[in-house]
Amino acid sequence: MIDFVDWIAVDWGTSNLRAWGIASDGSVAAERSSPKGMGKLTREEFPAALTELLDGLASSSGAPLDVLICGMAGARQGWLEAPYLEAPTDLSGLYAGAVRPAMPDARFAPAILPGVCQRGGADNVMRGEETQLLGLAALHTDFAGVVCMPGTHSKWARLNGTRIESFSTAMTGEMFEVLRTHSVLRHSLNGDLEGPGRSDGFVVGARAGLDHPEQLLGTLFQVRASALLSDRQPAWCAGYLSGLLIGTEVGSNRHLIGEHPVPLIGSAALCGLYAQVLAMIGATGVPQDTTKIVLAGLKAARSLSV
Amino acid sequence: MIDFVDWIAVDWGTSNLRAWGIASDGSVAAERSSPKGMGKLTREEFPAALTELLDGLASSSGAPLDVLICGMAGARQGWLEAPYLEAPTDLSGLYAGAVRPAMPDARFAPAILPGVCQRGGADNVMRGEETQLLGLAALHTDFAGVVCMPGTHSKWARLNGTRIESFSTAMTGEMFEVLRTHSVLRHSLNGDLEGPGRSDGFVVGARAGLDHPEQLLGTLFQVRASALLSDRQPAWCAGYLSGLLIGTEVGSNRHLIGEHPVPLIGSAALCGLYAQVLAMIGATGVPQDTTKIVLAGLKAARSLSV
Repeated sequence: MIDFVDWIAVDWGTSNLRAWGIASDGSVAAERSSPKGMGKLTREEFPAALTELLDGLASSSGAPLDVLICGMAGARQGWLEAPYLEAPTDLSGLYAGAVRPAMPDARFAPAILPGVCQRGGADNVMRGEETQLLGLAALHTDFAGVVCMPGTHSKWARLNGTRIESFSTAMTGEMFEVLRTHSVLRHSLNGDLEGPGRSDGFVVGARAGLDHPEQLLGTLFQVRASALLSDRQPAWCAGYLSGLLIGTEVGSNRHLIGEHPVPLIGSAALCGLYAQVLAMIGATGVPQDTTKIVLAGLKAARSLSV
Repeated sequence: MIDFVDWIAVDWGTSNLRAWGIASDGSVAAERSSPKGMGKLTREEFPAALTELLDGLASSSGAPLDVLICGMAGARQGWLEAPYLEAPTDLSGLYAGAVRPAMPDARFAPAILPGVCQRGGADNVMRGEETQLLGLAALHTDFAGVVCMPGTHSKWARLNGTRIESFSTAMTGEMFEVLRTHSVLRHSLNGDLEGPGRSDGFVVGARAGLDHPEQLLGTLFQVRASALLSDRQPAWCAGYLSGLLIGTEVGSNRHLIGEHPVPLIGSAALCGLYAQVLAMIGATGVPQDTTKIVLAGLKAARSLSV
């Protein structure tokens, strides 16, 4: 069975690969996903991974299907490096910077969108988030303010319409994982991490991070000390560590948060935790539907190309 | 051949075990070391590790030799848990808190000194450093101020004579290791880490950490971004990461640093780096001879027992 579509939107991240077949009226006619993220592929394996994922999708005209890709497929270690746009920059220029990797399967014509970088003392890079920011701008045309994108490497971006003014990256999610797995704190995080006590620990940690983001190297050790001295259980310690890291991230970005609500783009669970921490300083975080945002971004990028 | 000594001083850390045979005039008559740190031993293996290390040492009287031990041998996962003294506390009470593990070899009579803890919102623990602080107090009888002890888990302690007022722990050394080995930063730290550029990177990182200790989660990612965008080499990145972490630690403890020089107790290489960072904010760090400090601490603890 063949699904006839107008073009294909692809989000190719480090861990996963997702695709949507877009009908001529703009609706999603087919949806596919695969675990073949950039991190699991050699350069040579990208075309086959795409063909496998898109099998059964075709254009009604018989012409090659445009496949518009955002994310880590455009990284140096990805399929084909897509040069960065340099912030401050207008994201309406994303499509003009796309690169076209060779594709043995002539049914598909892939193009990979660039990421955005920032130079001059505050070196930084993003790949994939820029498309989400464009999606947010497309769905909320009058938005101007800071956007928080929680994750392994959280991004905070100052957005004004489709223009990205500046951004930063916080290694919050990855820090949680490496400390939990490889540091002395693992001794205190060995057990049922979802049990009762987690939410209490989260609030204590978030408060410490918000009040003293400059003390992170010290407050981290309190995970261990609290387990030794106060008999804190693994779930409490996991909550404390999670809250401490998110609180530190939010605390260090406090100067960017104005009176407007902060859009949150990321997994629903993580966005819920960030919204909770933002509320602790009187701010409002508004979790977005990430799939909707990515699709809106790819559509907006494409609409600026044709 | 037998070395006749009056008593034996032992520093039993996580990674290493060191012993000094002390003659009746207080001089060091014999020195031994072994890689059998607490972290490599089960509880049952401690007596044999000690006997093996001390073989050939004996008292001239034929009575059992006092063996005074500081450090992680007294941890919960060590030989026998030595309860903590609770800060603020006078370190002259260390010996009174010592515990005596069972010792099958009757030639030796071991006693393990307690560590120091801190409770009430700023939970913290130390084991071994308290003996070094007592040693510093014994060698500099009029010292009052903050002491910095760089390492895997750096300690900052406010000391007044033999009294420890308060202390904190920064996970600086361990953070360097887990990020270098297990995080995304490893891609930028893969190569010759000691090459040219390391000292330049160190200064840039230290400046960033000193100026913005609250931005650590963000500035860490700049190791990666600098490698991608500015073609920074592994040695520069390693220097930046080291400087950033030490600068953040020093920056977050800046309020404790008065006009007096800050004694530094730790490895010579590490103390040199901390002295360099302290100089960047107009402070003076004074590296101590750590072996001399440990020995002075064990001697001072013992002198208060007899």
